[in-house]
Amino acid sequence: MNIILLSGGSGTRLWPLSNSARSKQFLKLLPDGQGNLESMVQRVFRQLCGARLPTKHILAATSVTQQDFIRSQLGDQVEIVAEPSRRNTFPAILLSAAYLYFEKRCDPEETVLVMPVDTYTEPAYFNTLGRMAQAVDSGAAELVLMGIKPTHSSEKYGYMLPKPSETDGIRQIRSFVEKPPAAAAQEMIAQGALWNGGVFGFRLGYLIDIAQRTLAPTGFEDLRQRYDALENTSFDYGVVEKAHSVAAIPFDGLWKDLGTWNAFTEEMAENAVGPALLSEDTANTHVINELGIPLVALGVQNLVVAACPDGILIADKDKSDGLKAYVSNMLQRPMYEERRWGDYRVIDQTRHSDIDTLTKRLTLKPGGSISYQRHAMRDEIWVFTDGEGTLVLDGQRRSVGRGDIVQVKRGQLHTILATTELHAIEIQIGESLIEEDIERFDWQW
Amino acid sequence: MNIILLSGGSGTRLWPLSNSARSKQFLKLLPDGQGNLESMVQRVFRQLCGARLPTKHILAATSVTQQDFIRSQLGDQVEIVAEPSRRNTFPAILLSAAYLYFEKRCDPEETVLVMPVDTYTEPAYFNTLGRMAQAVDSGAAELVLMGIKPTHSSEKYGYMLPKPSETDGIRQIRSFVEKPPAAAAQEMIAQGALWNGGVFGFRLGYLIDIAQRTLAPTGFEDLRQRYDALENTSFDYGVVEKAHSVAAIPFDGLWKDLGTWNAFTEEMAENAVGPALLSEDTANTHVINELGIPLVALGVQNLVVAACPDGILIADKDKSDGLKAYVSNMLQRPMYEERRWGDYRVIDQTRHSDIDTLTKRLTLKPGGSISYQRHAMRDEIWVFTDGEGTLVLDGQRRSVGRGDIVQVKRGQLHTILATTELHAIEIQIGESLIEEDIERFDWQW
Repeated sequence: MNIILLSGGSGTRLWPLSNSARSKQFLKLLPDGQGNLESMVQRVFRQLCGARLPTKHILAATSVTQQDFIRSQLGDQVEIVAEPSRRNTFPAILLSAAYLYFEKRCDPEETVLVMPVDTYTEPAYFNTLGRMAQAVDSGAAELVLMGIKPTHSSEKYGYMLPKPSETDGIRQIRSFVEKPPAAAAQEMIAQGALWNGGVFGFRLGYLIDIAQRTLAPTGFEDLRQRYDALENTSFDYGVVEKAHSVAAIPFDGLWKDLGTWNAFTEEMAENAVGPALLSEDTANTHVINELGIPLVALGVQNLVVAACPDGILIADKDKSDGLKAYVSNMLQRPMYEERRWGDYRVIDQTRHSDIDTLTKRLTLKPGGSISYQRHAMRDEIWVFTDGEGTLVLDGQRRSVGRGDIVQVKRGQLHTILATTELHAIEIQIGESLIEEDIERFDWQW
Repeated sequence: MNIILLSGGSGTRLWPLSNSARSKQFLKLLPDGQGNLESMVQRVFRQLCGARLPTKHILAATSVTQQDFIRSQLGDQVEIVAEPSRRNTFPAILLSAAYLYFEKRCDPEETVLVMPVDTYTEPAYFNTLGRMAQAVDSGAAELVLMGIKPTHSSEKYGYMLPKPSETDGIRQIRSFVEKPPAAAAQEMIAQGALWNGGVFGFRLGYLIDIAQRTLAPTGFEDLRQRYDALENTSFDYGVVEKAHSVAAIPFDGLWKDLGTWNAFTEEMAENAVGPALLSEDTANTHVINELGIPLVALGVQNLVVAACPDGILIADKDKSDGLKAYVSNMLQRPMYEERRWGDYRVIDQTRHSDIDTLTKRLTLKPGGSISYQRHAMRDEIWVFTDGEGTLVLDGQRRSVGRGDIVQVKRGQLHTILATTELHAIEIQIGESLIEEDIERFDWQW
């Protein structure tokens, strides 16, 4: 079997920690059972590996903006299929299926399971994945979904109504209802409805047939080039609802969407992450402080406090559902990102005389290197504060380390390779500091 | 008459905005009536000037750490007498009196009024100052104090019990009680007691006599040199309680100690200072955000939120009284300071391989210059981001402006003069970045 991990979403609901690059699945705030913190994607991957399923390929289907986060948090354990543009789950899953078929030469008879990486769940979930693969193998239906046993009449989920009969724990699905009102949901639950957990199983050939009928790609790269021509819809609408037969394997265990601060903080092991002091009379309050300066919560109740380079949130937990409305028009460039080469945070941003200055603190991992790049509208000044590395400026190599300063004028090609962990302060000065002002070139180290 | 403005205190009770350099009187958060924000010291000075008292000299008695704040906020309108070390009000007032006598050649018969700069009050207070000066002139008593009409039986203040008789609004004081329990306070108020507002009037000679009896200084500089030999006590204990006669002029008006966040926010004109978004269902909440990143308060009640380079506070207003206990052992170097030459904030602080890196953003006012200085334990890298100025490095002058980089190695003498408003990022790297690692020299521009 092959697994496609679906990593998408942009996080306004967990602002300010989540931003256009860092979605909720990348927040390292969950206990890993070993006394450390891990993200949802790390947790899901750890649980997946622990289930010892007979996996052949594990892909991560994601966007260009998230691929560095995946690489940073999962290392080289997964192959990344990055969407050329950010679209819905139907095109994203089709692209990954094409990758398995054209690039990895998988047989059309092979089983593929697609699952989201932002699910907070337990080991039994991954055993259910194994049973889904068996159901696909046995030809139970064109599509096999995981059916989550509902815990309440939520209006947020899709519901699947199974037929009465059941064979080997496999339920044939009769109909789907997307986000019904609570009363209708209640009635469906009484009839045995299951939530659609966004986990899909099928034979690879089933999706390749759909690809052939729509764009008839000659190969993976061809499909990638014409990616925007694929219908921008969800896998549910684009595939599941058009299938002749759909079956579900029920899962009756821990399954949570940690999509609001209230839900997220329930799963944190500690009330405080980062420098924070909570007074004795502070109650039911969670603090996440990534700003590196002290934070004091004094006599407060039922709050979530999140402080990071993107902003500061102080919210009543019961109101955190409403956050999206306040922050959706506030989104700026990400102020913190993990990259394949390390991470950076913006520590200062100012504007004088129509010229912007942006100051970043960067850490490059040993062996990490930024691309060979140039900018048209900004100069950069790099001050190395610790570690050792090599810098290339317009083709000329030089060693860099603590106290070294490098001035990179607009138009100058540059790249940096870290020998040991390399720390730097970067100051950008220019009339426009947009992230898109970058041209990348090849460089052979 | 001469006025000594007493500026002291280190602010743990208004942390994080107040720190060892920025006391509460320097927080620019109060409405000035013109749509701008001003600090308590600016407000007191503006009100003092508005009262058009016949003042000869106005001194600010303060510490070395606060003198730049005074200069930054009041400009050259006051003369500063800086304590060589930080001590109580008795030595501080004696030093300023000696300055008036020895340096300004004031006559011992001249009247001196001493007042704190962290009082939140109204214009009538300054008229009362004028009546205090008249009482000193008329020889009503050795010392004339302002007696604040109590509004409640506070346990925080000193109480003065006047004799029954009254002449021209002048009350002779019979006894003092420092911070009585509420019940005793209640009883004293019933007997007509007044609060000691920390405003003292006397003839200059009265204090000079005390100076002569204690250290017998030969001049101001001599007293300054032997400053630590003066008893480290308050003016109340050291002078007032030993006086043969003390009178008080009552003041019955607005007089508040904005010493806690709860009290302070009551006098703010706006609920938010700095970038902040308060949801409609947020109530009775004040936000002060000096971090320059967005802040959202969602559905919270009765909070004060203060965020600045020194730290972040989220406190229930009714609990803000207890802040001191939590932050007093948290004090670090100030992360924001106003200086006579401009201001700076620390934007980043890291430590790698036992070496510290500290990154500051600085603004020098036109004409402002840092002292000609050198450091033994750190290198500095200055990156100028806007404006124009002149830099001197080991005696060599050069012009600096946007994009210029200057490397200052340990031991190298340097100073900077701003021609226009000059902006820079400064990166300090060294095994110790303590503020005390500075040697200052003369430089003639």
